[in-house]
Amino acid sequence: MIKKEKLNEAVLIKEIERLSLETQKFNKSLVIKSIGDDCAIIKDKNCLLVSSDSITENVHFNFDSYDFYEIGKKSLLVNLSDIAAMGGIPRVFILSFFVPPYINEGDIRSVLLGIVAAAKKYRVSLIGGNISKSSEFSISITIIGDYKNNNAIRRFNSSKDNQVYVSGELGNSWLSFFLNHNKNYIFKNYPNLKVEDKKLIEKFIQRHKLPEPRINLGKRLSEKKLANSLTDISDGLIKDVYNIVGKECGCEINIDEIPINQDLKYICDILNIKDYIDKAISFGEDYELLWTSEKNNEKELLRLSRVKSVKIKKIGRITNKPSCVKFLKDGAVYLPKDFTFKHL
Amino acid sequence: MIKKEKLNEAVLIKEIERLSLETQKFNKSLVIKSIGDDCAIIKDKNCLLVSSDSITENVHFNFDSYDFYEIGKKSLLVNLSDIAAMGGIPRVFILSFFVPPYINEGDIRSVLLGIVAAAKKYRVSLIGGNISKSSEFSISITIIGDYKNNNAIRRFNSSKDNQVYVSGELGNSWLSFFLNHNKNYIFKNYPNLKVEDKKLIEKFIQRHKLPEPRINLGKRLSEKKLANSLTDISDGLIKDVYNIVGKECGCEINIDEIPINQDLKYICDILNIKDYIDKAISFGEDYELLWTSEKNNEKELLRLSRVKSVKIKKIGRITNKPSCVKFLKDGAVYLPKDFTFKHL
Repeated sequence: MIKKEKLNEAVLIKEIERLSLETQKFNKSLVIKSIGDDCAIIKDKNCLLVSSDSITENVHFNFDSYDFYEIGKKSLLVNLSDIAAMGGIPRVFILSFFVPPYINEGDIRSVLLGIVAAAKKYRVSLIGGNISKSSEFSISITIIGDYKNNNAIRRFNSSKDNQVYVSGELGNSWLSFFLNHNKNYIFKNYPNLKVEDKKLIEKFIQRHKLPEPRINLGKRLSEKKLANSLTDISDGLIKDVYNIVGKECGCEINIDEIPINQDLKYICDILNIKDYIDKAISFGEDYELLWTSEKNNEKELLRLSRVKSVKIKKIGRITNKPSCVKFLKDGAVYLPKDFTFKHL
Repeated sequence: MIKKEKLNEAVLIKEIERLSLETQKFNKSLVIKSIGDDCAIIKDKNCLLVSSDSITENVHFNFDSYDFYEIGKKSLLVNLSDIAAMGGIPRVFILSFFVPPYINEGDIRSVLLGIVAAAKKYRVSLIGGNISKSSEFSISITIIGDYKNNNAIRRFNSSKDNQVYVSGELGNSWLSFFLNHNKNYIFKNYPNLKVEDKKLIEKFIQRHKLPEPRINLGKRLSEKKLANSLTDISDGLIKDVYNIVGKECGCEINIDEIPINQDLKYICDILNIKDYIDKAISFGEDYELLWTSEKNNEKELLRLSRVKSVKIKKIGRITNKPSCVKFLKDGAVYLPKDFTFKHL
């Protein structure tokens, strides 16, 4: 057994400070003081968005399937998605590490590198944090953003005859998770799998392991006022759809319109997984955007999809039946099996 | 064994929403949108302070010594202290619960009531949060505040011949913790303890179980520009004192001037605890303020102490010996034993 070095809090804080400075060029005028005092100081010009999300070992990830770098990345990406889900621009974040005894300094360093890689990609600045002991590994992040044109797009704000849209594809996160956890079993028990199939499976796992927060799309929906109601899909469409309809409306979702990845269909086909649509709309963790929009925005949304190279798919419509969410398949009511990701 | 009801996330979120609304009257113009969307929206006028702190089962508390209401209170109080340590005014906070299977809805409700009681006392508004599964109970809070007159008081900003001050008394948190954990043993093994002594011990535990963030004092130090360098004592004076001196200065602390509670001295005397001074300056968790000030502020600080009914004690002075912290007793160098609270 490799002996792990003990965690030195002071050394680690120095490291966090150094990495945090690398991310502060993105928000120079905003960050007055960051790590190294009792609080960080930020100065803003707009309204601010604040959100907090945590990821925990054996709930949101496990060490068999994710390395520390990926865990770090994921912890920030899920928070960025909450800012995207308001049409906002992420600016600064503060982190809390809960560190069990079996995690060493090198592990935390990898987590930090993952966090900072995501921070650089989305131009968001690390401004503070704290570290405490625990018996399992968790990362809690609070993210602060802002938005332009006085237009943060909230939930529950749909009107009758709005159309329902979703970005990207649903189910990739589920299948990546499933394959990642069952790869060895699958490779052993499906002797007819071709070499290319195995390669495809490996590629699929890697490509869809981590979410891609739709910051640019959200920002554009906000700037151009193309959404009445907006959220991100973290718990699965069949649960999150209630967040866009509001109390006065309901909605109809056309199951056949759910955007599904071609490779996902192919892999499910060779593995004989029949209920992939149910998984795709209930497992969650895709972090795609889900929104409603006036009918006459359809052309503009299609244009946006082309310009921003992001898939946008109309999947249903808002009705005037309060809190009534219906799934339709070939025109008939469809009752999806619920595999909703359980946070509790 | 009592069967605990399962935790219902939706019910709990409703409860948090209701309690959060009760706290929003304190910051009406600031909070535009709180719980129930992907982010909270806040609008500010000043520079903002942001800080995050967590408390975890068996690290910062255990269920034998704290009930859920007290744990809730403590989780917010330690965060408020970080705002006090900048001379700021706390405004809004967002929380993350990490909930193990043995915690039920009633427990969380008690935690929330504790949090909201502290929020009401310090007029700070709950604006959001999230809940996730875990194997031990933790609460992570991010607090946002602001400050007046463009004067946030940072660390590391002392000048030679500044005087060093501390608020309140040191060591109460240590003795309360110690008595709380050893009460049964003490009551059994010290047969000469009088009934009044036992009562005093019980009272001491209760009175000093939870910290009292020095918001008003910090605000006043900032408004009246009475501190060059300010922090709070969370890790113990012998560690935290490095946060006020900075790289160009050192300091001398007079051990005999450390403010110690009379009851603490009495209890330590009857229990034959000799090294209480070392404990008082190293255990931490007192959350008193520690600052440096120009010599000519002494009268004003004494006046402030009277007006605000908070003890203020001069305990040392800043020297020009870089990073050199010395403790003196009867004029000679004193080497305190280090019982510093370990976060890792």
